[in-house]
Formats: sequence, structure tokens, C-alpha cells
Amino acid sequence: MTVLDRHDPAGAIAAAAKRCSNWGRWGADDVLGTLNFLDAAKRVEGAALVRRGVSFSLAQSFDADGPQKGWRRRTNPVHTMLDTGLDAERGQGFPHGIGGADDVVFMPLQASTQWDGLGHIFDHGMAWNGRRAGDVVTSGGDGVTGIETVASLIAGRGVLLDVGRAVGEDGELPDGFAITVEHLAATIAAQGGSARVGRGDLLLVRTGRLARARREGWGDYAGGPTPGLSFTTADWLYGTEIAGIATDTWGFEVRPNEFDEAFQPLHQVCIPHIGLFLGEMWDLDALAADCAADGVYEFLLAAGPLPVLGAVGAPVNPLAVK
Amino acid sequence: MTVLDRHDPAGAIAAAAKRCSNWGRWGADDVLGTLNFLDAAKRVEGAALVRRGVSFSLAQSFDADGPQKGWRRRTNPVHTMLDTGLDAERGQGFPHGIGGADDVVFMPLQASTQWDGLGHIFDHGMAWNGRRAGDVVTSGGDGVTGIETVASLIAGRGVLLDVGRAVGEDGELPDGFAITVEHLAATIAAQGGSARVGRGDLLLVRTGRLARARREGWGDYAGGPTPGLSFTTADWLYGTEIAGIATDTWGFEVRPNEFDEAFQPLHQVCIPHIGLFLGEMWDLDALAADCAADGVYEFLLAAGPLPVLGAVGAPVNPLAVK
Amino acid sequence: MTVLDRHDPAGAIAAAAKRCSNWGRWGADDVLGTLNFLDAAKRVEGAALVRRGVSFSLAQSFDADGPQKGWRRRTNPVHTMLDTGLDAERGQGFPHGIGGADDVVFMPLQASTQWDGLGHIFDHGMAWNGRRAGDVVTSGGDGVTGIETVASLIAGRGVLLDVGRAVGEDGELPDGFAITVEHLAATIAAQGGSARVGRGDLLLVRTGRLARARREGWGDYAGGPTPGLSFTTADWLYGTEIAGIATDTWGFEVRPNEFDEAFQPLHQVCIPHIGLFLGEMWDLDALAADCAADGVYEFLLAAGPLPVLGAVGAPVNPLAVK
Amino acid sequence: MTVLDRHDPAGAIAAAAKRCSNWGRWGADDVLGTLNFLDAAKRVEGAALVRRGVSFSLAQSFDADGPQKGWRRRTNPVHTMLDTGLDAERGQGFPHGIGGADDVVFMPLQASTQWDGLGHIFDHGMAWNGRRAGDVVTSGGDGVTGIETVASLIAGRGVLLDVGRAVGEDGELPDGFAITVEHLAATIAAQGGSARVGRGDLLLVRTGRLARARREGWGDYAGGPTPGLSFTTADWLYGTEIAGIATDTWGFEVRPNEFDEAFQPLHQVCIPHIGLFLGEMWDLDALAADCAADGVYEFLLAAGPLPVLGAVGAPVNPLAVK
Repeated sequence: MTVLDRHDPAGAIAAAAKRCSNWGRWGADDVLGTLNFLDAAKRVEGAALVRRGVSFSLAQSFDADGPQKGWRRRTNPVHTMLDTGLDAERGQGFPHGIGGADDVVFMPLQASTQWDGLGHIFDHGMAWNGRRAGDVVTSGGDGVTGIETVASLIAGRGVLLDVGRAVGEDGELPDGFAITVEHLAATIAAQGGSARVGRGDLLLVRTGRLARARREGWGDYAGGPTPGLSFTTADWLYGTEIAGIATDTWGFEVRPNEFDEAFQPLHQVCIPHIGLFLGEMWDLDALAADCAADGVYEFLLAAGPLPVLGAVGAPVNPLAVK
Repeated sequence: MTVLDRHDPAGAIAAAAKRCSNWGRWGADDVLGTLNFLDAAKRVEGAALVRRGVSFSLAQSFDADGPQKGWRRRTNPVHTMLDTGLDAERGQGFPHGIGGADDVVFMPLQASTQWDGLGHIFDHGMAWNGRRAGDVVTSGGDGVTGIETVASLIAGRGVLLDVGRAVGEDGELPDGFAITVEHLAATIAAQGGSARVGRGDLLLVRTGRLARARREGWGDYAGGPTPGLSFTTADWLYGTEIAGIATDTWGFEVRPNEFDEAFQPLHQVCIPHIGLFLGEMWDLDALAADCAADGVYEFLLAAGPLPVLGAVGAPVNPLAVK
Repeated sequence: MTVLDRHDPAGAIAAAAKRCSNWGRWGADDVLGTLNFLDAAKRVEGAALVRRGVSFSLAQSFDADGPQKGWRRRTNPVHTMLDTGLDAERGQGFPHGIGGADDVVFMPLQASTQWDGLGHIFDHGMAWNGRRAGDVVTSGGDGVTGIETVASLIAGRGVLLDVGRAVGEDGELPDGFAITVEHLAATIAAQGGSARVGRGDLLLVRTGRLARARREGWGDYAGGPTPGLSFTTADWLYGTEIAGIATDTWGFEVRPNEFDEAFQPLHQVCIPHIGLFLGEMWDLDALAADCAADGVYEFLLAAGPLPVLGAVGAPVNPLAVK
Repeated sequence: MTVLDRHDPAGAIAAAAKRCSNWGRWGADDVLGTLNFLDAAKRVEGAALVRRGVSFSLAQSFDADGPQKGWRRRTNPVHTMLDTGLDAERGQGFPHGIGGADDVVFMPLQASTQWDGLGHIFDHGMAWNGRRAGDVVTSGGDGVTGIETVASLIAGRGVLLDVGRAVGEDGELPDGFAITVEHLAATIAAQGGSARVGRGDLLLVRTGRLARARREGWGDYAGGPTPGLSFTTADWLYGTEIAGIATDTWGFEVRPNEFDEAFQPLHQVCIPHIGLFLGEMWDLDALAADCAADGVYEFLLAAGPLPVLGAVGAPVNPLAVK
């Protein structure tokens, strides 16, 4: 088991970044990162996993009662109406009795269930594939790796590792619990053959944190203590050649982070160096219950982000079909 | 071929509504409408259509240069940055060299590629399944048939009818062209066996209107003259028992509408009476080119709307996989 | 001193509404309410109070760190940039070296310092001057008494009653402190001749609540316990014929309200029945310090709301000049 | 009369910037620019101009039907309701019959009547007083000269130069008309003694462009051809030591600009070098009519911008009182 020097996040990050770099692997112009691993064969494999025809939305609700507290202006979505049924009953000036309702939303793109884009996180001013951060993302948005570049790609084999159920108590890991490679391996072993993880897969890791928030209230779900991936999983995330990974937590990583002074160090390796797509705030509970019931942890996953032009992250309604 | 009395939209609508009503068909509490037709077997059937593993996003871009002109306050999406790569290069106060970009969007929910929810359109103040419009959609949103109620359901067999290619010239129908049942039948016949349309299918109708806008500029794409479904298709849409239908146009129906004074009369039958899910502003061009090339017009379609709580419509990134 | 029956808010409101009604006083078409009292002579009187030329903004800051917690979707303002100085340094494509920054805001109109419009509050479905609420404010906004109707009017004689200083300890009233007519009279007496209050005046009442929030953090400033006007002041507010009144609190009235089950009962009398303009979340501290120093509690007040068409309230940057 | 070399905007700008620079005039830390000229005596002088007590709002309406066309994402304001009178009539769950309406706005801060802040425009990456643009305005906003720094200051003597009426036909100047120092002098002469312009004054220049837009529709009001200040007025604007200047046009300057290839060259001198406050999209028509009627062109002007924290410009409802 890897031991971290809690006093040296910068050193640990630099070393991991060097070991796990995919820069140049798919050419200097690459904008897809690990989605290069998700090929046509993997989509065929994913589709073949649909046996019962049951589908699950892995999206949390997008609404004003979400967990966001305004950190760096990340608020919850505000949904307002442009027209309502009450207006329609009163009369809206349309002919032949037609009436309508319409609406609008204001929301940070990472307010709820989302994919981080490759322009979301930088390491010392450098973005994915060795580009300068300021050459990629300006006030006009991400002109290089905007989320729209991957809009059509994210459909393939999904696999759930329900670490909360396999390793935790009552299906939940406690806050501050760092999921290591050993925990992932134990979960795979516990779940059996359908839980193998490999090249091109879309990996879902359930911690149980959302289930707890649902039961106890949001509390510090957004940014506070949480179970999550250990920084030490960087090499495994790199080596398995997965196409993407998503969790039921606010920020993918364990919090507090595993260094004395740190902020999301695993992001700093995964996004700019591995080119890995990270999904956050996914709702894995209903899917996990189904997987526990039938013992099958693999499925078709279709999770194309909303293609907001130039976005560095985007909301998504991921559908898992078994 | 059905002949419409151009002078009597109200009469035609009332008659069609009576013939095509699904009110009560799935119980008094139903909120799913024609998505009741999309069952597990249909999802299995859809998944089995994935052979080559090629995927298509059917979403238009969500950006400020879209077609909306502000009609009833429907603007284009406005995407702004909360943090950029330039800020990261300059220093954002985070430890160990991590930097980040983040963003936010303001958008009408029907600004770009979207599903209409069942609370979007009313007939004389009545909503889907016989509810009063004002009991369904208030300023708090759609408390009954909000789009979140169908978030997990829309994955199944998609079928494309490329009427533009089968009936039009150079792949496009002219503005004002009303697609009738005969045109749909001719397209099915021209496309062959993979184009059959039946219970539970998700039907995509391509007119070529978006291809023209892409070539010539948006012009009046949003609300102006357009090819689209004829009012006379109401009974066919009802009788085929499809789960949903989407087009590459702003508003699904032919415009100008086929009555002297009218506004989207087919909506008034389809949404509140049939309970039919309508998709608008979908980009079907790349998929259509692929279908024309391999002669296969059916595919897996995964198109779960973004679950904005209480929304009467919602953006979606539909993925078609063949 | 008036004694309230804590068990009967509805009865107390109805009685006060009857005693204090201005319905019809300025004709059936009136949209100005008590601003009818603010005439040209009053503006001349206000201007004549400018002696030293010192000016005060009575606005709180409009920013994301404000007191709002999302109650009924009232969030704090979210300000984002469309272009920045960093973009300008990098190059924006403009000629001859010009660069620019630009920005956008999303905000509830009552997020910070604001005037309530006459369409903000209703009594049993009735709005100011006896109109039905639904005839006044639809999803299209307030089509009758929208805040734009008073945009040019609100400049005149302002008078500050620093009740916090006159009656409280260390300049602040405690939460739950109901300011009665007696407290107002005592404050006027303590402050001297410049503090007289009469027809057409714009009255500012300082409780000290904002000073405490500034010192201790927002806490429950928005909607929680607070000093404020007692319900029993309704007749005084009516009888003095003031043009408007503003406080340094979230909601003008004392909270908890003075009935067992109640929500802002004084609003229910003041806005729809008196037609009184209420200002909330004003920052009176610097002005109050100046008034305490020179003993002059009257001044020119120019406080025209931002004329958002059809708004039921609007942000304002009130300027007091002495 | 100054002759411009149409081929050399950069040279002309650099020369004017050198002649007209106020950098360092009020110290290295200054954030107020020409508002330093607006002192207490000027406010007393302004207040003394109130004789009749008539007041004018100089704000245009803030609504979705404004002139903006989305240039660089500058849209018109979108105002939506959080609650309406229709909801109140139906019942909102409040006690004792109280009901309420509430609302929200999304708007670029320069969508309608506004003040440009000193962080709005840069010259070769340099901001007001010699600061680097990127040190002043980041994605977090203008951390140095944010509009809140001047919130309390802008009240003083206003003076209207109705150039449209004095020099134009039927009160309007044609598009492309460059207002020179000679035109300003002629207007002052025509209007008489009350129209003198000097140190600390707030100058309003009416072109008639808004009156034409009101009559003929917005057309290209936002960014298209327009009468406006000539680049050659830079030295006069500097030398008069006015505190601010506002026009009834989108962009203060004549358009097309007076160089072959240019974009708002006068801004590039006025904001970063003179430190001059520019107001745009003001509605001067009613005030101008009154001034023409009584022959008095000076008045009290109270025009404090809405203090959106860190904003590089801000909406304002300017009140002129005579």
C-alpha cells in the first residue's frame, strides 16, 4: 500500500503526474483524453449487456434545494417560469384555445450531476496535453477542449463498484474514508465477474455519501468531508485505461484531502495529465440496489454531456440500462 | 388524404382531440403519457440494434449564436465563466499549483435541443390526462408532470424517417411543406424494413430544415416558415402508439400552420390529449447521412432529458448508437 | 398602547385594512399610492436641505456573499464576467490596442437594497386600489403597477429615525423588538426638530440590525428574527401620509411577527391597502453616524428604483445628500 | 478644427492619451478618476438648482424588448417571475390571506442605461491610472475600480447640451454625425448661461438618436451607425474637467468611428487615460423638452450606479430634478 508524505503534496503530485502522463499519446491535437479508449467495440459490448430492459437515470435533481452553498459562486440551479398553467387558464392571447407554459434556468454547469471537461483543472497553469491554461480557457470559454467535443462519445460499458456496500457498513463509507486500490480490488472480488474493470470502461464508484445526504440532509455534501478516491489510486486509474469515472460525491476525491494543505490533488493528476473524464454528483443508489439484487454490475451506460459550447464541465442525465 | 377546413381550427382540433384522446388510458394519476408504450422489451430491442458501435449526438450546440430571437423571452443560452485558464495562470490562491475553470449558463429550457414535457401545452386550460392547467403548472413549476418524472425512461428503439431525403429535393423539404401520412408512408417504403414504425418507438423525422439553416444562416428558423408535420397526422401519431417523436425543426409542425389563424394546432392535440412527447431542434443530419449510407434506419436511442425539477421541457443530448 | 390579539391575525389585518385604506383616494386608475404625497414642493424642500454637500449611498453591496439563503428561490446576486482585463492583456481581436471588460448579473430583484412595488403583496387575492391580484401580476410581470411607473418620482425630503440609537443599547435594537408608535415618537423627540415626519416625506428607520450583521455575520438576517416595525404602527404609517419608508432590515416588520401564526402581516396592510412604498435592506449606518454627529436628521433623498419593466420590486442605490 | 488622419488610429490615440492623461493626478491609489472633480460644493450647487421640484428619470426601460442583439453576449434583460398574482389568487400556502409576487432578472450590466466603470476599457493592456488590466479585472470582477467605489458620489450639477436640437434638424442629428468642440460651443451659446460647462459638472449630451429609435424601432441602435462625440473632443473633455458625461446613444462616440479601422477610439482615451465616467443609453428626451420649454439647462442630477460588487459598469436610474 502506497504511503503518502502528508507534508509534500506538490512533490507527490509532480511524481504521479510524471508516472501517469498521457500527454502526446494521441497526438498533439488531441481533445478527447481517455475517451480515446472508448471505441466502437466497447459500445457494442455495452449494448450487449442490456438483458432485462430496465433503465436508471443516474442524475440528481436540478433544483434550488440542492447542496451548493455558493462556493466560488457555485449556486444551486434557479428555475423560473416564463408562462404557467395559471396564465393559460387566464388567457394568453393565443388562438383556438391553445395555452402554454415555458421556463428558463440559471445554473452553474457543475451545480448538479455533471462531467468535468478537460479544461476544468490545470497543473501549474498547464492544461490537458501540455497546453497553456490561458490558451485553452478564456472568458469566451474553452476554445479547445470544450465539452461539446465529446458530446457524441460517452456511450459504452458501464461498471459499478459499490465500495460502500462491499467495504462500508450498511452500504456507506464514512466521511474521510480514502478508497484505495485495495478497496477497489476487494469490491471487484466481492462483486464477481461482471465487475471487472478495463480499457474503455466507464467506471462508477458508489460511496454511499449521497444516500446519507438524502437521509440526513445536504449538510456539507458540497465541499465538506466525504469518502472518495485516495490520491494513491492515480496509477491504477491511469493503468486500467478506463474512459471515465464517476462517483456519488461532490468532488470524486476523499475529503479532507490526504495532505496537510491541499485542494483536490487527485484532480490535478487526473484531468490535465491522464486526460481522465470525471463525473461528480451522480446518483448511483437505485442502480446499486438493482445490481445488488441481481448480482450483475455491468450495463450499458449512455451519458453524453449537454453540449454547452466551450463549457469546462456540463450537466448530464446518465442512463444505465441493464 | 384528409382535407382541412382552413377556417375552423378550433373545430378541427376539438374533433382530433376527441378521436385521439388517451385521457384515463393509464389511470387518473398518469404522468407518463405515451412513454407508457416504451417498455423494457423495447429497450432490449433497441440495444440489440447496436452492431457497429458508432454513436451520434443529436444535439445542436447550446450557445449564444443560436436561432432564438427572444420570442416570449426565449433567448439563446448565455454561457459565462466563473474562472478561466487566464485566471489560473495568474494565480487563484489554491495550493500546490492547482488551478481551475468553472462556468455557468442562463438559458430557456427550450432554447436548443429539447423534449417538450406534458405540462408545456394546454387545450382550453386543460393539461394532459384531464387536469386543469393551473393545477399542474404554477410559478413553482410543473408539480405534476415535471420533466423529472420521465428522466429514466427514454431509452429504446429509435427510427429515423428522413422525409427530406425521400421526398424532398437535395435532401430538404421547402418551408411550408406539410408532411402528411402519405409522405411518412412513402418514406418508410423507400427506406425499407428497418424503417417500420410501431408501438413504443422513438420516431425521428428529418426535414432538412436544419441543414438549410446551417448552410444559409438561422434566418427565421425559430418560429418562421418551415417544413413540418401536417395537422392531419394527428390520428397516425395516435394510432401508431409511438412513445415520442422529434424533428430537426424549431416547432415540429409545418409553419405557417394549415389554418388561416392558428398557432401550433397539432401541439394542442398531441401534448394534452395524446400525451405524446415531442422533441424539437434535434440535429439529425449526421445520423441521417450514416443511415443513407448503410441503409439501416433503426438504432438504439438514449435521450433522457436533463431533470430540472418541475420543468415543462428540458434540454437533452440524445445519443443514437448503431 | 395598542394591544394585539395574538390569536387573530386575520381579524387584526382586516380591521387595520379597513381603517387605513387609501383605495380610490387618487382615482380608480391610480398606480402611485402614497407617492402621490410626494409632490414638487416636497422635492424643493428636500433639495433645500443640502447644506454641506456630503452624500451617502444607502445601498448594500450586490454580491454573492449577501444574506439570502434561497428562500422561495431568492438567492444572492451572481455576477460573472463576459470579458476581463486578463483577456484584454492576452488579446481580444480589437484594433489599435483597445481592450475591454464586460459583465452580467443574475439576481432576484429583492436580493439586496430595494423598493417593494405595489404589486409585491396582496390581501386575499386583492392588490393595491382594489384590483384582483391576477389582473395585475402574471408571468409577464406587473402590467399595472410595475416599478417603472414610479421611476421618476422618488426624490424628496428624507428623514432618519435612528430608533436603534435613540431607544436601543449601543445603537442597536435586539431581535424581536417591535418598534411602536411610542418608540417612533420618542426618537423624534430625542432627535429634535429636523426629525419631524409628515406628508410626503421619505422615512428611514434604523434598527441597527445591519450593523450587527456586519459585525457578526449574516446569520438569519434574511427572514430570521429581527427588530422592526410593530403591526400596531399601521395607523401611524397611514395617518402621517408619508410617501415611503425604508429600514435596514430584511423585511421592514419585526420578526417573529406579533401573531402566533403569521407572515408579514404589516405588509398585508401597507402595500395593498395604504399603497405604501416599502424599502428594505437599506444601509443607514454611515448616514446615521453623520446625523448623530451634526444633529441634522433630514436631507435630500434621491432613490429612483431601477426601472425593470413590470417588476414588483426593484434594486435601488438611494443617495442621501446633506 | 482638428483634422484626423483616418489611417492612423493608433497614432492619434497615443497622442491624445499623452496630452490628456490624468494618471497620477490623484495619487497612485486613485480609483475615482474624474469623480474627484465632483466635490461637496458642486453638490450644494446642484441642489440649489432645484426650483420647481419637477423630476425626470433618465433611464430607459430594462426589458426584453431592448436594443441589444447579443454582440459579445450582451443580451437584453430577461425578467421572470418567482411568484405572481395568479399564484396568489390560487393560494400560496401563506397564513391569513397574504399573497405575494416576486421576481428575478438576468442582464448584462450594460444592457440598458448605465455608467461605464473605470475597469471597462483598456489601452494596450493598461487600465486607469497606469495599472495592468489583468491586475484590475479578473473573472472575479474588478477588484480595484469596481463600480461600488463610486456608488455614493454621483450627485451634483447636471447640465444638458441638446446638440440635436441646437444643431440638428427637427431635434435630431443624423447617423454618422460627429459632434465636435465647435458643435458643443454652438450649443452652449444657443442655450444661454445655464448651459455653461465646467469642472465637476455632469454633462449630458442629447443627439436625438433615442428619439429616432423610439419612433422607427431599435434597428441598429446597439452598435450601428449613430451620431456621437467626435474623437477630436478628447482634449475638450479633458480640459473642461467635467466629472462625467452621458449620451442618449449606445456608445457615446460617433459611429462609424472616424478612422478607417477602429473600434471606439475615444473610449480608449477617455476611460483609461482621462479616468472619465461615461454614461450610455440614457433617455434625455423628456428632460430636454422641459429644458427647451423653460430655457434652463442645468439641474440637480443624482445618478448613483447600482453597486454590483466588482462590476465594470452598472445600471443606473438617473434622476434629474429642476
